[in-house]
Amino acid sequence: MTTAKRDTYTPETLLTVAVRVFNERGYDGTSMEHLSKAAGISKSSIYHHVAGKEELLRRAVSRALDGLFGILGESGATRGRAIGRVEYVTRRTVEVLIAELPYVTLLLRVRGNTKTERWALERRREFDQRVGDLLKAAVADGDLRSDVDIRLATRLLFGMVNSLVEWYRPLPDGGAERDQLADTVVRLAFDGMKAG
Amino acid sequence: MTTAKRDTYTPETLLTVAVRVFNERGYDGTSMEHLSKAAGISKSSIYHHVAGKEELLRRAVSRALDGLFGILGESGATRGRAIGRVEYVTRRTVEVLIAELPYVTLLLRVRGNTKTERWALERRREFDQRVGDLLKAAVADGDLRSDVDIRLATRLLFGMVNSLVEWYRPLPDGGAERDQLADTVVRLAFDGMKAG
Repeated sequence: MTTAKRDTYTPETLLTVAVRVFNERGYDGTSMEHLSKAAGISKSSIYHHVAGKEELLRRAVSRALDGLFGILGESGATRGRAIGRVEYVTRRTVEVLIAELPYVTLLLRVRGNTKTERWALERRREFDQRVGDLLKAAVADGDLRSDVDIRLATRLLFGMVNSLVEWYRPLPDGGAERDQLADTVVRLAFDGMKAG
Repeated sequence: MTTAKRDTYTPETLLTVAVRVFNERGYDGTSMEHLSKAAGISKSSIYHHVAGKEELLRRAVSRALDGLFGILGESGATRGRAIGRVEYVTRRTVEVLIAELPYVTLLLRVRGNTKTERWALERRREFDQRVGDLLKAAVADGDLRSDVDIRLATRLLFGMVNSLVEWYRPLPDGGAERDQLADTVVRLAFDGMKAG
C-alpha cells in the first residue's frame, strides 16, 4: 500500500495496537487486514515482525499470565499464614489487572477456539486453582469460613476481581486510586459489606 | 429454501434459538442468515414473526430486564430495613440470573452499537442505580460499612453476582443447588470470606 505509514514498529509496539483491536472486535472477529489498517502498515510488514495473529495473541496473553503468575512467586504469596497470603494475592491481582488492563482484558475474553486460546484458558484455570489451594489452606487454619464451597468461593472472588476489566478506566491521578481500589476489593471480599 | 423445516415457530420459540446464536456469535456477529440456518427456516419465515434481528434482541433483553426489575417490586425489596431489602434483592438477582440464564447473559454482553443495545445498557444502569440507592440507605442505617465508596461497592457486588453467567451451568438437581448458590453469594457479599 502506497498510503501506508513507514513501518517504525517493534514487535512490542505492534502488540499494543493488536491488543486494542482484539479487545474491540474480539480475537475471532479480527483479520490481518484489520490489524494492518489499525497499525497503518501493510500486512507483509506485520509478517516481518510476527508469524500471524495467533502469535500476537500468544504474546499478549503471555504478558497477562506472566504478571499474574509472577504474583505467586512473590514473598507475600509464599511466606506466612495462608490468610495473609490469600489477601496479598488478591490485592496484587487487582494491581496487575490495572497495570496490564488491556492484556488481562484480552486474557479474560479468550474463548478457546484455537490452540493458543485453549492454552491460555488452561493457564488461567491453573492460576485460579493455585489461589483456590491457598483459600483451602486458610480454611484449614480456621481463618476462612468453612461453610462455603471453596471452588464456588474462588469463582465468586475472581468474579468480583475480574469484573474490573469491564468497568475500570484509569484516572489521571493514578496511584492513589489504584491503592484504594485494591484495598476496597480486599476489604469487601474478606470482611464483607456489613458494618463491623 | 426447499430443504428448510416447516415453520412451526412462534415468536417465543424463535427467540430461544436467536438468543442461543447471539450468545455464541455475539449480537454484532450474527446475521439473519445465521439465524435462518440455526432455526432451520427461511429468512422470510423469520420476517413473518419479527421485523428483524434487532426486534429479537429487544425481546430477549426485555425478558431479562423484566425479571430483574420485577424483583424491585416484590415486598421483600420494598418493606423493612434497607439491609434486609439489599440482601433480598441480591438473593433474588442470583435466582433470576439462573432462571433466565441465556437472556441475562445476552443482556450483560450488550455493547451499545445499536439503539436497542444503548437502551438495554441504560436500563441496566438504572437497575444498578436502584440497588446502589438501597445500599446507600443501609449505610445510612449503620448496617453497611461506611468506609467504602458506594458506587465501587455496587460495582463489585454486581461483578461477583454477574460473573455467574460466565461459569454457572445448571445441574440436573436444580432447585437445591440454586438455593445454595444464592445463599453463598449473599453470605460472601455481606459477611465476607473470613471465619466469623
